[in-house]
Amino acid sequence: MNIDKYPSRLLENAVNEFAKLPGIGRKSALRLVLHLLRQPGEEVTTFGNSLIELRNEIKHCKVCHNISDTEICQICANPSRNESVVCVVENIRDVMSVENTQQFNGLYHVLGGIISPMDGIGPADLEIDSLIKRIVKGEITEIIFALSTTMEGDTTNFYIFRKLKDLNVKLSTLARGVSIGDELEYTDEITLGRSLINRVPYESSLGK
Amino acid sequence: MNIDKYPSRLLENAVNEFAKLPGIGRKSALRLVLHLLRQPGEEVTTFGNSLIELRNEIKHCKVCHNISDTEICQICANPSRNESVVCVVENIRDVMSVENTQQFNGLYHVLGGIISPMDGIGPADLEIDSLIKRIVKGEITEIIFALSTTMEGDTTNFYIFRKLKDLNVKLSTLARGVSIGDELEYTDEITLGRSLINRVPYESSLGK
Repeated sequence: MNIDKYPSRLLENAVNEFAKLPGIGRKSALRLVLHLLRQPGEEVTTFGNSLIELRNEIKHCKVCHNISDTEICQICANPSRNESVVCVVENIRDVMSVENTQQFNGLYHVLGGIISPMDGIGPADLEIDSLIKRIVKGEITEIIFALSTTMEGDTTNFYIFRKLKDLNVKLSTLARGVSIGDELEYTDEITLGRSLINRVPYESSLGK
Repeated sequence: MNIDKYPSRLLENAVNEFAKLPGIGRKSALRLVLHLLRQPGEEVTTFGNSLIELRNEIKHCKVCHNISDTEICQICANPSRNESVVCVVENIRDVMSVENTQQFNGLYHVLGGIISPMDGIGPADLEIDSLIKRIVKGEITEIIFALSTTMEGDTTNFYIFRKLKDLNVKLSTLARGVSIGDELEYTDEITLGRSLINRVPYESSLGK
């Protein structure tokens, strides 16, 4: 069924806006809009304003390019974090993922994407030069690459690796291996092969 | 993984608002918000304002209670529609569904819900009295019930039927039967039984 006769222009506008979001079709958009119509007016006003404020007032941290309410983000501004280790990630979701592990006390560098010729994203579109500038200052001793293990992620890793390899900084990458809880039988052979090559002393597998 | 450390209060607000929508969890909300962050500022402002305008400016048609930009909706105000036939539906989505068939030229009456004791919705919460008032005026000759074939829909149908049966108006309901394109083998027995009892002359099955 094709729903396109809307009884109201205001309704149609709101549906059109929701339907622009990724993964939301016109039917879902209509369902969401009708839900909002049943909410108190001030709640919908708060919703609308939260989006407008977000887009117009949010900042990117001048150091790590994570999004932030201030010029320097909470992580970069935190004196108890280790400034000598920097974790390179694709986007702010990855910052949140690493933060949630509670296993990392260094700083971040958000590239803002990964090299993807298919999507027209080249090295110049990413925050690579600013990463090099941070390293050249001399306070960073280790860079941890934490990009996706996709072809684009590996390409980006390799591109940055070549740029950084002559600088006086240790370069490491996340361990690739069998996920905790996975059975060997169902692990793909590339991952299993990599986890054999990069095997670790038994004691360090205890998380100590 | 539990994402709850947001790098920005503005981001967190927007995620909280999206996550209030039905069917949208915190992870999807974050994805949508980050998508909006990548859009031009004026587009996000348009989005936010479209929701605020919708909620604060939309009206309900005084006659049929469909939503509308004006006091009387486009359908009720259209002189080429047949004012003597009124289709009773649960909500505005059902108006749109029936309109999309292009098989109905009468008017509507939107109940605003169906009787559902589980959800605390009783007859007094629905636009039933206003339906009776419309009928009492004497211009309506037929009421078509077009509610869902659920227990709640049938209950609402029967409640309204008892209220209207002594008024001088023909009461009909949508035909229930085997969906077009369905195989008999996979049709549930209640539907198949009903479509046997309510069988129609062969010529009318041709849609004439």
